[in-house]
Amino acid sequence: MAGNDTLFGKIIRREIPASIVYEDDEVLGFLDTAPQAPVHVLFIPKHEAIPTLDDLQPEQAQLVGRLVLAAAAHARAQGLAEDGYRVVINCRADAGQTVFHLHLHLLAGAALGRFGTPE
Amino acid sequence: MAGNDTLFGKIIRREIPASIVYEDDEVLGFLDTAPQAPVHVLFIPKHEAIPTLDDLQPEQAQLVGRLVLAAAAHARAQGLAEDGYRVVINCRADAGQTVFHLHLHLLAGAALGRFGTPE
Repeated sequence: MAGNDTLFGKIIRREIPASIVYEDDEVLGFLDTAPQAPVHVLFIPKHEAIPTLDDLQPEQAQLVGRLVLAAAAHARAQGLAEDGYRVVINCRADAGQTVFHLHLHLLAGAALGRFGTPE
Repeated sequence: MAGNDTLFGKIIRREIPASIVYEDDEVLGFLDTAPQAPVHVLFIPKHEAIPTLDDLQPEQAQLVGRLVLAAAAHARAQGLAEDGYRVVINCRADAGQTVFHLHLHLLAGAALGRFGTPE
């Protein structure tokens, strides 16, 4: 694992437990432990430890696209796509990023609310 | 323009006005007219009219990745990346999708709130 190590690196290596719900050759998906919706899954790259979205390089479009497509495939497989879902990537403090290993949130299972500043 | 036409198709063809703040060979970025944060920009693919994230095909990982990277590049260019920002794609009703041309939201400029169900 290149780069800095985090909680998510430990989950990838199965050093700490997580509720894993999705895996392919590039992406691991597991339940968020502080869910903001009935379904809240985090999708992370298994082979690259990129701290934030701001660290992503232009040649890594495919990699971040794979995170998005993994979330879409999981939503479809779970029967969540017809009602709908949201995917989110938070970058740094103003967005509330707390683990510095690039991750994409999938939220579904209820009508979702605002996604910007609090009202 | 293949597929269904929407408000965003008309913006791409400059048939209706929009505050365009970003453009590259694949992606157009313009201000959301109902902003949820001090900075709220929408990024759309210029050459493909994909209705929802659920319609995205596995071979289009690069395309959706280019939307993410366009938002990250714009945030960096505008001096927003250090404080942080959020990117969001809403799919269908539960997420509040209203225009059925795939688009990615960039939100920045303040501390952002929850992104799932309302509290």
